[in-house]
Amino acid sequence: MTGRRDYYHDPNAPQATTIVAGGSAIVTDQLGRILLQRRADSGNWALPGGVMDIGETLEQCVIREVREETGLDIEITGLVGIYTDPAHVIAYDDGEVRQQFNITFTGTVTGGELQRSNESTDVRFVHPADLDALPMHETIRLRLRHFAERRSTPYLG
Amino acid sequence: MTGRRDYYHDPNAPQATTIVAGGSAIVTDQLGRILLQRRADSGNWALPGGVMDIGETLEQCVIREVREETGLDIEITGLVGIYTDPAHVIAYDDGEVRQQFNITFTGTVTGGELQRSNESTDVRFVHPADLDALPMHETIRLRLRHFAERRSTPYLG
Repeated sequence: MTGRRDYYHDPNAPQATTIVAGGSAIVTDQLGRILLQRRADSGNWALPGGVMDIGETLEQCVIREVREETGLDIEITGLVGIYTDPAHVIAYDDGEVRQQFNITFTGTVTGGELQRSNESTDVRFVHPADLDALPMHETIRLRLRHFAERRSTPYLG
Repeated sequence: MTGRRDYYHDPNAPQATTIVAGGSAIVTDQLGRILLQRRADSGNWALPGGVMDIGETLEQCVIREVREETGLDIEITGLVGIYTDPAHVIAYDDGEVRQQFNITFTGTVTGGELQRSNESTDVRFVHPADLDALPMHETIRLRLRHFAERRSTPYLG
């Protein structure tokens, strides 16, 4: 596991040197609760997701990451938004400084069993009314807010 | 200008080693004609677009590339689709072998004057009925087809 630090609209953010394509999923259950994991590195609750491997599509990437991080198989059902704000910079312990590039999809569970990975300390479905009380990075709240708005067209930012 | 060769569902394609986030725009005029440029390297007609620079959003990238390649200022009006098929591989003269990652937007002209760049031999608005007769890579035809279908949700592939 690699440690990370998020900088968001922070004048002291280091200069990004990479952009890496990745995605996340907002996966809901029959009760409308949202699948979240609590990151071991930051203690924040976050959406499952990650960056693409060569040889897979972005959708396949998101399905794979959700499986690895939550134990659940999903199918992609739609698109919430494209998040490419250069004011969100992530510095990793290995020295990489990455500019955010995230595409957030919606998904539903098709199989598997809920279990956390070694990158998280907890994984669970959370009721939307309980989101505000959880520690969470502002960029994740933004995506959840766009999802809650049930936009007819994806957010492009 | 860097030369390139596209491989598409080709068993002889080289192994990709990079994924680079980029985008294109389908820009239409008042007559519904589509802005295309004829690539100097391949002779194919293509959509204006390119890959992201650090410090810009994907939308800003597409606006910049359209300006550089066609002389026109545009605004982004919507999303056609996300194209991340690993069976589309692009080999560049400098040795880079890139897996496709393209997000195609719609746009309209807000200013500027039509002029070609040094990467193209022609740039013009083309009537949809005339597209079939132009030499064009299959991946560009796919995006134009999705645009023509006026999908209510973006293509995710």
